[in-house]
Formats: sequence, structure tokens, C-alpha cells
Amino acid sequence: MAGIKHLVMAKFKEGAPVQQLILDLKKLASELDIVKSFEWGEDVMKVERYSHGFTHVFILTFDSAEDVAEYMKHPGHVEYGKKFRAGVEKILAVDFPDVVEKTTATA
Amino acid sequence: MAGIKHLVMAKFKEGAPVQQLILDLKKLASELDIVKSFEWGEDVMKVERYSHGFTHVFILTFDSAEDVAEYMKHPGHVEYGKKFRAGVEKILAVDFPDVVEKTTATA
Repeated sequence: MAGIKHLVMAKFKEGAPVQQLILDLKKLASELDIVKSFEWGEDVMKVERYSHGFTHVFILTFDSAEDVAEYMKHPGHVEYGKKFRAGVEKILAVDFPDVVEKTTATA
Repeated sequence: MAGIKHLVMAKFKEGAPVQQLILDLKKLASELDIVKSFEWGEDVMKVERYSHGFTHVFILTFDSAEDVAEYMKHPGHVEYGKKFRAGVEKILAVDFPDVVEKTTATA
């Protein structure tokens, strides 16, 4: 696929409700048709000089930049963003048109 | 899909051969069967407080942690890594088992 990916990395505060925040994002992604895919993961390398302290990656895929913009303004995302930000010590976010150079049947 | 994603973000040095580095990684990924997918993109949001200065994202997908380890040690990757590092001002890398929560036919 192509599309635009909204990639967020987080370092959560001690005691942040990480699992609930993931569940809430899963719910939000499932409710919004403009979100074409949602995947996430937790870093297993855990090498500070590479991770810069970020432990979790969240990737949402959209068809277009317009859809990303619509997502950003969506009340559900605005509300979610407040909860998410309250739980993170630091955050990284980029949006990028996804260039797929190799893909396989299982990928 | 599931699998393990090796995600690298880079802020390149002024004058770094970015397009060549991307082509070389595309070639390496195409040559190695353990690399199940390779995609990349350039941040279009360009908001420093979110991007932390990183401009490019590279995502390689593998079937297992063992395959990621094999990739890391592969002579082709070791050689590529030297060229890549020479071109970057800073780098971020995490490996994460990919949890797919939503996917669509077009994603």
C-alpha cells in the first residue's frame, strides 16, 4: 500500500495507564473509517542511545494528507490526545507518505 | 501482518547522499530474503518539537527476532551501516513485534 503514515513514539510516565491508552486508541481507530490501519509495538532492543528513551511506536495509516488533517481535528482524537499527552514524558511524531520498496505475501 | 519491525529514523548531515543511501538500502532489502518488507518516508509535518529533528523513517519487517539478528550481522548490512552512519547527524532505532489492531484491504 501507499497512503500516509502518522507515526507516534512515546516514552510514558511512570504509572501511566499504558494498556488503557492502547485500548482507547484501538477503539478510536476502529470507529473512524478514515483510519485505514493501526498497528503498534513496544521496543524490545531497549538500547537507550538508539531508542532515545522511546518505548512504544504507534502507526496509523490514512489514504491522504486530508484524512490525516481530519483525524487530527476529530473530537475523538482531540479528547484522546489529551489523555495520551497526560501519560507521556516525551513524544515524537512524524507524518510521511509511505514509499513501499519491497513487500511480500506475508508482509 | 505481524512480524518484527526494525524502525530507524534519521536526521541527515548537510550534503549527505540521501537518495543514494535510500537506493542502497532498497537494493540490500531486495537481496535479502529475510527482509519481508521495506518501506520508508520523509516527514511532511516538519514540526521540530514533534520530529525532534528526524526527517526520514525506514521500516524493515522480519518474520522473527532471529531474522533481525541475522540481518544486523549480515556483511551487507554491516557495510551499509557504515555508509549510513557517516551520513547521519542523529539516528533513532527500535525493534518491535508488530501488533496489528486494524487493517483494511487497501492498507
